[in-house]
Amino acid sequence: MEALSRDILDRVWNASGIRLVGDGVPAGDVMVGQRELASWDQWYPYWAGRGDAYENLARAALDRGRRQSAGELFWHACLSYHYAQFLWFHDPQSREAGQRHKVELYREAAPLFVAPAERFDLAFEDFVIPGYLRLPPGRIGPSPAAVILGGLESTKEESYRFENLCLARGLATCTFDGPGQGEMYFQAKLRPDFHRFASAVLDWLVARPEIDSARIGVIGRSLGGFYAVHWAAHEPRLKACVCWGVLFDLSYYDAMRDPARRGFAYVAGFDDPERAAPYLKKTLDLAGQAEHVGCPVYALHGARDTLIPPAQVDRLRAALAHHPDAQFDVPEDGDHCCHNLYHVVRPRMADWLAERLGGQTA
Amino acid sequence: MEALSRDILDRVWNASGIRLVGDGVPAGDVMVGQRELASWDQWYPYWAGRGDAYENLARAALDRGRRQSAGELFWHACLSYHYAQFLWFHDPQSREAGQRHKVELYREAAPLFVAPAERFDLAFEDFVIPGYLRLPPGRIGPSPAAVILGGLESTKEESYRFENLCLARGLATCTFDGPGQGEMYFQAKLRPDFHRFASAVLDWLVARPEIDSARIGVIGRSLGGFYAVHWAAHEPRLKACVCWGVLFDLSYYDAMRDPARRGFAYVAGFDDPERAAPYLKKTLDLAGQAEHVGCPVYALHGARDTLIPPAQVDRLRAALAHHPDAQFDVPEDGDHCCHNLYHVVRPRMADWLAERLGGQTA
Repeated sequence: MEALSRDILDRVWNASGIRLVGDGVPAGDVMVGQRELASWDQWYPYWAGRGDAYENLARAALDRGRRQSAGELFWHACLSYHYAQFLWFHDPQSREAGQRHKVELYREAAPLFVAPAERFDLAFEDFVIPGYLRLPPGRIGPSPAAVILGGLESTKEESYRFENLCLARGLATCTFDGPGQGEMYFQAKLRPDFHRFASAVLDWLVARPEIDSARIGVIGRSLGGFYAVHWAAHEPRLKACVCWGVLFDLSYYDAMRDPARRGFAYVAGFDDPERAAPYLKKTLDLAGQAEHVGCPVYALHGARDTLIPPAQVDRLRAALAHHPDAQFDVPEDGDHCCHNLYHVVRPRMADWLAERLGGQTA
Repeated sequence: MEALSRDILDRVWNASGIRLVGDGVPAGDVMVGQRELASWDQWYPYWAGRGDAYENLARAALDRGRRQSAGELFWHACLSYHYAQFLWFHDPQSREAGQRHKVELYREAAPLFVAPAERFDLAFEDFVIPGYLRLPPGRIGPSPAAVILGGLESTKEESYRFENLCLARGLATCTFDGPGQGEMYFQAKLRPDFHRFASAVLDWLVARPEIDSARIGVIGRSLGGFYAVHWAAHEPRLKACVCWGVLFDLSYYDAMRDPARRGFAYVAGFDDPERAAPYLKKTLDLAGQAEHVGCPVYALHGARDTLIPPAQVDRLRAALAHHPDAQFDVPEDGDHCCHNLYHVVRPRMADWLAERLGGQTA
């Protein structure tokens, strides 16, 4: 059991250590964690402790009127709790507590950002879809917008840094939790009609006077890359689609290891990964969908991705063989979602979106 | 020799690994370097290779009109070369080549930043002092300004990230190379009147119409912390002084290890660290100076600093015992210049400067 716990910890550091830094987790916290954590059991408490420390610093900064710093410290607190719980599927009680606390921390951070994040809670059928809208500072007239989709365990609170790259290029950003994600998990598990939830958000977004309804694109990361293509196949109003990590189907599910495999089962509402297999494989499959994407597509995948096999890229490439404007970018030295190349590929994707949607790259 | 080279490499990673990330070096490059470099000999070639890779990416981005991304990629190239040569004192030929190439790369980056950096070359006696001025975007009327001083091996090109924190708080930023630093090293070695060079830059700065001459402060890091206090003791026009790492004197010089010790000798123009000792100890001593600082002082020092002993803080504290507005911030878990806490202490110093100089922290 101890060896297993150590093994999971090593796997998580190897697969995600650099992702944490790219998303904004302080490198010092990652380095201390890599040095001091002895097993996976210690993961959640370590990051929750970091989160509590940043929350205290945020409140102290706020008391002194340092709103800008307080906003980023609340965001650090949020991100610490996010990563405390992100793969903690074996202990739903802690995971859910961490998830809820992270949501609260981001709500405190959101209005303090230099480009504030405006919370929305959107009624849709029997659900309430929560999300955030951010507008580029200094904009003149309606802005183009990028809708940013999370993946298996990423949520509307995780993309602050990438949003900043979009804002700097004149794009508004919109994030939300879909079925199985973040706050929505408590209302709806992973389901085949993710696109209907996304289009409900789009209905709201196009009605906002600050947004140019004719210039909206989508970017989704990891499982969010699946959702981006899935949504673009159903939604003709989208003008650009970035698939940040190509997940075409779950044909590789049986070879997947924990905690990722357990995670897929969890977000679909299954305790047992074995029993979840048929539902997941049927629900997550772009065959018959990807062919219908009409807007330009940019697909990024790391050739050294050890979580999603590169064969998945071949399937998307085949499905888009007749697409007039589909680009594939597969860096040889890229890992999962090219997180190890975050400083190069993230601005590149933001540039592509800005070019397709009429933002500014200059 | 091999063991020595390995030993130096380990020392550099331990003392500076996190500093690189805080200054903006991609965490992926640091992690690959930590895994793959076997000895100190490989340091310069590794980082020069990274620099060349970013330069190529920058030119490709520029060809596509992606100026913003190109600017940051040139800056990444610059920073890679900066850290290639930063402690490479034993091989002056490579060090100087790296230094010059870094300067060229920053010159290409500077006009491309969202808040561009304007190069100046200021005639002063027989010298030409090179530097950069950046103005906060969206400013109305003259801005307060922070003059940012480098240290033993840091230069005017190294503080882009910290400058951004200042700009976001409404402060303009001014950096330059003083005697013994960066480009000035080729004109003047470390000397006792650094303050005269700094005041020459201030003369130029106060004449700029974009700058409010009554609201200018200084921040200096590591040996730059010495220079900040030294300058503030001689310059009554300064309204705030941040000592980012307290170096009061070189009483600990004989206990210092390479490459830092060799570096002090190098910037003072000596081949032999032993022979440099008397000159350095006499030249770098705040006794009799620090008492004359009239403006508010904020001194930050990591209690776990292994490069500058904490006893140095006690000396500055004693010299400022009767100062009406001197704050000491000595985080228990901070390393040299609290680089491991960069995400917490850097915004905090920028906030303090903005408060003292009438910028914005909200």
